[in-house]
Amino acid sequence: MPVTLAELARRFGAQVRGAGETQITGVADLERAGPGQIAYVGDKSHRRRLGTSAAAALILNATDAAAHRGNALVVDNPQLCFAHIAAFLHEPVRNATGIHARALVDATARIAPTAVIGSDTVIEASAVIGVDVEIGPGCYVGRGAEIGAGTKLIGHVWIGANSVLGCRCVLQPGVIVGSDGFGYVLDGERWVKVPQLGRVVVGDDVEIGANSTIDRGALNDTTIGDGVKIDNLVQVAHNVRIGEHTAIAACVGIAGSTVIGKRCAIGGQVGITGHLSIADDVRVLAKSLVASSIVAAGTYSSAIRTEPAASWRRQVVRLKRLDETEQRLRQLEKEILSLKRGT
Amino acid sequence: MPVTLAELARRFGAQVRGAGETQITGVADLERAGPGQIAYVGDKSHRRRLGTSAAAALILNATDAAAHRGNALVVDNPQLCFAHIAAFLHEPVRNATGIHARALVDATARIAPTAVIGSDTVIEASAVIGVDVEIGPGCYVGRGAEIGAGTKLIGHVWIGANSVLGCRCVLQPGVIVGSDGFGYVLDGERWVKVPQLGRVVVGDDVEIGANSTIDRGALNDTTIGDGVKIDNLVQVAHNVRIGEHTAIAACVGIAGSTVIGKRCAIGGQVGITGHLSIADDVRVLAKSLVASSIVAAGTYSSAIRTEPAASWRRQVVRLKRLDETEQRLRQLEKEILSLKRGT
Amino acid sequence: MPVTLAELARRFGAQVRGAGETQITGVADLERAGPGQIAYVGDKSHRRRLGTSAAAALILNATDAAAHRGNALVVDNPQLCFAHIAAFLHEPVRNATGIHARALVDATARIAPTAVIGSDTVIEASAVIGVDVEIGPGCYVGRGAEIGAGTKLIGHVWIGANSVLGCRCVLQPGVIVGSDGFGYVLDGERWVKVPQLGRVVVGDDVEIGANSTIDRGALNDTTIGDGVKIDNLVQVAHNVRIGEHTAIAACVGIAGSTVIGKRCAIGGQVGITGHLSIADDVRVLAKSLVASSIVAAGTYSSAIRTEPAASWRRQVVRLKRLDETEQRLRQLEKEILSLKRGT
Repeated sequence: MPVTLAELARRFGAQVRGAGETQITGVADLERAGPGQIAYVGDKSHRRRLGTSAAAALILNATDAAAHRGNALVVDNPQLCFAHIAAFLHEPVRNATGIHARALVDATARIAPTAVIGSDTVIEASAVIGVDVEIGPGCYVGRGAEIGAGTKLIGHVWIGANSVLGCRCVLQPGVIVGSDGFGYVLDGERWVKVPQLGRVVVGDDVEIGANSTIDRGALNDTTIGDGVKIDNLVQVAHNVRIGEHTAIAACVGIAGSTVIGKRCAIGGQVGITGHLSIADDVRVLAKSLVASSIVAAGTYSSAIRTEPAASWRRQVVRLKRLDETEQRLRQLEKEILSLKRGT
Repeated sequence: MPVTLAELARRFGAQVRGAGETQITGVADLERAGPGQIAYVGDKSHRRRLGTSAAAALILNATDAAAHRGNALVVDNPQLCFAHIAAFLHEPVRNATGIHARALVDATARIAPTAVIGSDTVIEASAVIGVDVEIGPGCYVGRGAEIGAGTKLIGHVWIGANSVLGCRCVLQPGVIVGSDGFGYVLDGERWVKVPQLGRVVVGDDVEIGANSTIDRGALNDTTIGDGVKIDNLVQVAHNVRIGEHTAIAACVGIAGSTVIGKRCAIGGQVGITGHLSIADDVRVLAKSLVASSIVAAGTYSSAIRTEPAASWRRQVVRLKRLDETEQRLRQLEKEILSLKRGT
Repeated sequence: MPVTLAELARRFGAQVRGAGETQITGVADLERAGPGQIAYVGDKSHRRRLGTSAAAALILNATDAAAHRGNALVVDNPQLCFAHIAAFLHEPVRNATGIHARALVDATARIAPTAVIGSDTVIEASAVIGVDVEIGPGCYVGRGAEIGAGTKLIGHVWIGANSVLGCRCVLQPGVIVGSDGFGYVLDGERWVKVPQLGRVVVGDDVEIGANSTIDRGALNDTTIGDGVKIDNLVQVAHNVRIGEHTAIAACVGIAGSTVIGKRCAIGGQVGITGHLSIADDVRVLAKSLVASSIVAAGTYSSAIRTEPAASWRRQVVRLKRLDETEQRLRQLEKEILSLKRGT
C-alpha cells in the first residue's frame, strides 16, 4: 500500500520539501526510479545525476537539497533513512505460517506459538524456538539449540546441538553453525581427533552470509557478539570470539582461538591466524594476512594490487633478490667511505 | 550401446584413419584406455605416451596422426572433439522423471510437463520451470523464480525469490543463488541492514560450481552473462555483472557492483574489490588482488610463489625495509655526486 | 556415568598420582575445570595456571607432574591422552537409530542392519552403506556410492554417484563429494564442458570440514588418502591426489591434477595451482601460493603479514619501483668504479 511523503517524513524523522501528499510505493536506484518511487543521494556519482532523476522524491542531506528543486526528504544521513524506508515499504513476503505439516519437530522441543517452521526442517529434542522466529525449509536445529525471538533461518541452514542464537539474527541459506572445529593431535604420523565439546553462542542482531561456517568451541564456546555482520563463505574456527558490531566481508578465514575486537572491519579474503588478539576499531584491508596480534586501532594491510603480469614478474624477481641488493648497497657504502677517506 | 568409429567421425566431423568399423563403447585416459575405448592426444605428455596406448582408437590432430599407426579420428582440436564424444557416449543416468511424490510444488507454479522435480524439493508460488529442466532432491526454488529450458539443479541448490536462470545451465550441489547481499549502513556503532530487493539474472549455458554463492542485487540486478563458467566456492556479491563466456576458478571473491568483461579468465583465489570495471579478455593469475579497474585486455598478476620459509622471511624483512633502502640509495647518490664534483 | 581416575589410567596407559578412586565425569579447560572434571597441561600458558586449577585431576607429563601436588594422570603426551579420555567420556548422543521413516532408500541399495539413515536422506540405486554408518538428516548418497563401516555424514551432506568413502570417516554438514570438476575446452569464444566421468575415492579415517567440496575426477579418480584431515570451505579439484595423514586447514584451494604427499600440513587460505607435485612432509604456511612443484620436505611460505596501511603503501610503492632501484644501483656501481679508476 502506498504512503505519502509526509507520512514517511513523520515516521523516519525527515523534513519534507515539496508536495507532502505525493504517494510513494517503493524505493529504487536514483537512475531508474520513476513515478511513485523514492531514491537517495549518497555520493558524488549520485550527485552528478541529481538533475536527471525521474523519482517521485529524493532523500538527501541539506547541502544536496539546496541544489534540488523536486520533492525531497531532508535528513542527516540519506542512506540510513533510505534503508529504513526500504525496509518499511518492502516487507518480505512470508512464505508460510505455523509449523509446516512436513516439519519434524521433536516432542520435547519448545516452539513459540508465533514461530514459523518450514517443510522438511528438523527440530531436535529440547530445542527452544522463540517468538516470531522464522525457519525456512530444509533446516536443521540440533538437540538443545536455542533460537532467540525474531531470528530468521532463511533455509537450508544447519544449527548444531546446543548452539545459541540471539534475537533478530538472519542466517542466509547454507550457513553451518556448530560444526566440529579442526582439532587433532598427532599420535606418531596419525591425527587423533580432539572431541569438540563447546558451543557456538551468537548475540542479537547478527547476520551470517550464505554458506559461511562457524565451528563450535573445543571445550569453551565460540562467540559472536551483538550486531556482528558476516558475509558469504566466511570461516570462523573454534573458540574464536568476535566483538560487537564487527563486520566481516566475504571469504575471510579466522583460525582458532583468535579474539577480534568491537567495531572492526575485516576486508574480503583476509586471513587471520590462530590465538591472536585484535584490538577494537581495527580495519584490515582486503586479502591481507594478519599473523600477529594487533594492539592499536587503525587500518592495516599487506596485500598487493595486480599489474600487468610481465612487469609483475620482474618485480618478483627483484623482490626475491633483495638479499643480494642489500649486499650490493653495503658494498657501495663501504667503497664510498674508502673513497671519501682517500680523497 | 557401442558405436563405430566411422559413425563417430560422421557425427563429429572427423576423418577416420584405420578400421572405421571398430566398436567404441566409451572414453578413457590415454594411459588407461583399453579395448572399446577412445582417448585423445592433447599435449606433450600425451604425445610421449602415444606409442604405448592400448586404446581402440585415438583422437588427434594431423601432425600427431602422422606419428601414429593405429585407428584414429583426425581433427583440428582433439580435446574439443573428445569432449563432444564423451558427452555422447556417457549421457548421465537420470535418477527420476516427473514430479517426485515428495516434491512440494505450489499450485500457482508453472511446471513444464517434461520437467523433473526431485524429492523434498520446494517450488514456491508463481515459479516457472521450463521444458526438460531437471531439479534434483532437496532444492528450493523461491517465489516467482524462473528456470529456463534444459537447466539442471543437481541437488541441494537454493534459488531465491525472483531469480532468473537461462537455458541449459548446470548448478552443482550446494549452490546458493539469490542470497541477500552484504549491505549495511552505520547508525552510530550499529549496522542497519539495507534491504536487498534486486534479483539474480543468469544467462544461458552458465555453470556454477559446488557451494558457490551469488547474491541478489541491492536495488538493481546481479547478472551473469551467457556461457559464464564459475567453479566451486566462488562468491559473487550484489550487483556484480559478469560478461559472456568469462571463466572464474575456485575460491574467487568478487565484491559488490564490480563489472567484469567478456571472455575473461579469473584464476583461483583471486579477489576483486567492489565498484571496479574489468575490460574484456582480461586474464588474472591465481591469488592476485584486483583493487583498481583494468582498462586493457592482457594478463595481470600480483601473487608471489612460495619458497623455503627461512629465505622467504629474509626477503620479507628486506621488503619491509625498502623505505630505508631508498634512503640509503639517495644518500649514496648524493655522496657520489659530491665526490665527482670534488675530483 | 562417572569413572574413577584409576580406571581411566588403566584404559589409557597412564600412571595415577593421588586418589585413584576420584570420580571423573567429564573433561574441561584447565581454567574452568571443577569437581569431577579432568583437564590437561599441554603448553606454557597451561603451566602458568597449574597451581590455580580446581580440576578433580590433571593429565600431565612427568616434568609438569613434579610441580603439581593434586591428583594426576602422568603420560608422555598429555594432549593425546586428553583426546582419548574426552572421546571416552563424551560419546556423542545418537539422534536416531535405524532407517528413518522419512528416508528415501532405493530398493537396490544395500544397507547394513546397524546403519542409521536420517530423515529426508536419499540413498540412490546400488549404493552400499556399511555397518554402523550414521547418515544424518537431509543427506544424498548417489547411485552406486559406497560408504565404509563406521563413517558418519553429520547432515546436509551430498555424496555424488559412484563415490567411495572408507571406514570411520566424518563428513561435517554441507560437504559436497563428487561434484563435477571445472573442465571445459574452448570452441571459439564458447566453453564446451568436458564430461566429468571419474570418481572420488576417500580412504579410511578421513575427516572433511563443513561446506568443503571435493570434485570427482575427469576420467580417472580424485583420491584422498587414509587419515587425511580437511578443514572447512576447502576446495579439492578434479584428479587431485592427497597423501596419507596430510592436514589441510580452512579455505585452501587445490587446483586440478595436483598430487600432494603424505604427512603434509597446508595452512589456511593456501592456494596450490594445478598439475603440481608436492613432496611428503611439506609444510606450507598460511595464505601462501604454491605455483610450482615442491620436491623436498620442509617449510614453505610466500605470505606477508599486515602492518599499518600507511607504511605498507609506502613499501608497495618501493616494491613496484624495484626495477628502477636496480638501475640506480647499477649506475652507482659504474660511477664508483670510474671514480676508483680515476683516483
